[in-house]
Amino acid sequence: MKITIKKATNKDLSGIMELIKDVTDYHYKIDKYYKPFSKYKGLDKYTKEQLKGKSVKMLVAEDDGKIIGRIVGVIIKPPPYVSPKKIGNIDDIFIKEAYRHKRTGEKLLKELLKWFKEKKIKHIRLSVDARNKIGVKAWKKFGFYDYRIEMRKDL
Amino acid sequence: MKITIKKATNKDLSGIMELIKDVTDYHYKIDKYYKPFSKYKGLDKYTKEQLKGKSVKMLVAEDDGKIIGRIVGVIIKPPPYVSPKKIGNIDDIFIKEAYRHKRTGEKLLKELLKWFKEKKIKHIRLSVDARNKIGVKAWKKFGFYDYRIEMRKDL
Repeated sequence: MKITIKKATNKDLSGIMELIKDVTDYHYKIDKYYKPFSKYKGLDKYTKEQLKGKSVKMLVAEDDGKIIGRIVGVIIKPPPYVSPKKIGNIDDIFIKEAYRHKRTGEKLLKELLKWFKEKKIKHIRLSVDARNKIGVKAWKKFGFYDYRIEMRKDL
Repeated sequence: MKITIKKATNKDLSGIMELIKDVTDYHYKIDKYYKPFSKYKGLDKYTKEQLKGKSVKMLVAEDDGKIIGRIVGVIIKPPPYVSPKKIGNIDDIFIKEAYRHKRTGEKLLKELLKWFKEKKIKHIRLSVDARNKIGVKAWKKFGFYDYRIEMRKDL
């Protein structure tokens, strides 16, 4: 097994869609409030747009030509209540289950942070499901801290 | 002291702006990442628009004609990754410090939830600063639970 990291291209689309299916269905399994992949229309079109976007960095991890992970970073305008004019947003990170605990996520993140720094980004944000304990723990290990909590009440 | 709750109108604007100043500067005190009130342009215009909005419910709490608290609920289209087509968002709640621990927040929230129910809303979300422990605790008491965590890293 030799994991390599590269910039995603249109050729990677089907491999990427497999990862998106995994992450989408993972959330649906946690909470039926999320859309399952089968009902989430337009994800392929959205991903193609991201692949063309100048403010987007999408990296994939490959094992012998097979896509086993990805990270997506986007430069966005933050909400009006904060000071910076632009910030980095981590849209998604996902590593196939069989490939975890091999620091692939860390490598993807390091590459992405390098890009954000080149783009003079000073603040990165992301949103993770509160019940995804492994995810929250991993982000903390990488120096992220709880900034805001999104809470819900179902009537 | 006799606290009454009523629908906010344009006449309440200056009292409401005082509350907005308090909540904005509270956040700036927690974290300089937030804009202080003095640099947050357009809040009065935004508030006036909300007062006219059909998908907005703004309630104020008064003590002898003086505004001492408010809550704002908005019906919004949620992000594409969730199933409901419309959800309720609690934009803001704030009670002046001297008037806390008198269940005014609870009364405002109950009125707002009644409105959301009339509008057939099944899910309410809100976002609270993770370091605002009193706020997080209060929302939990009112039946809200952690749904997503927004995390940040400063480069």
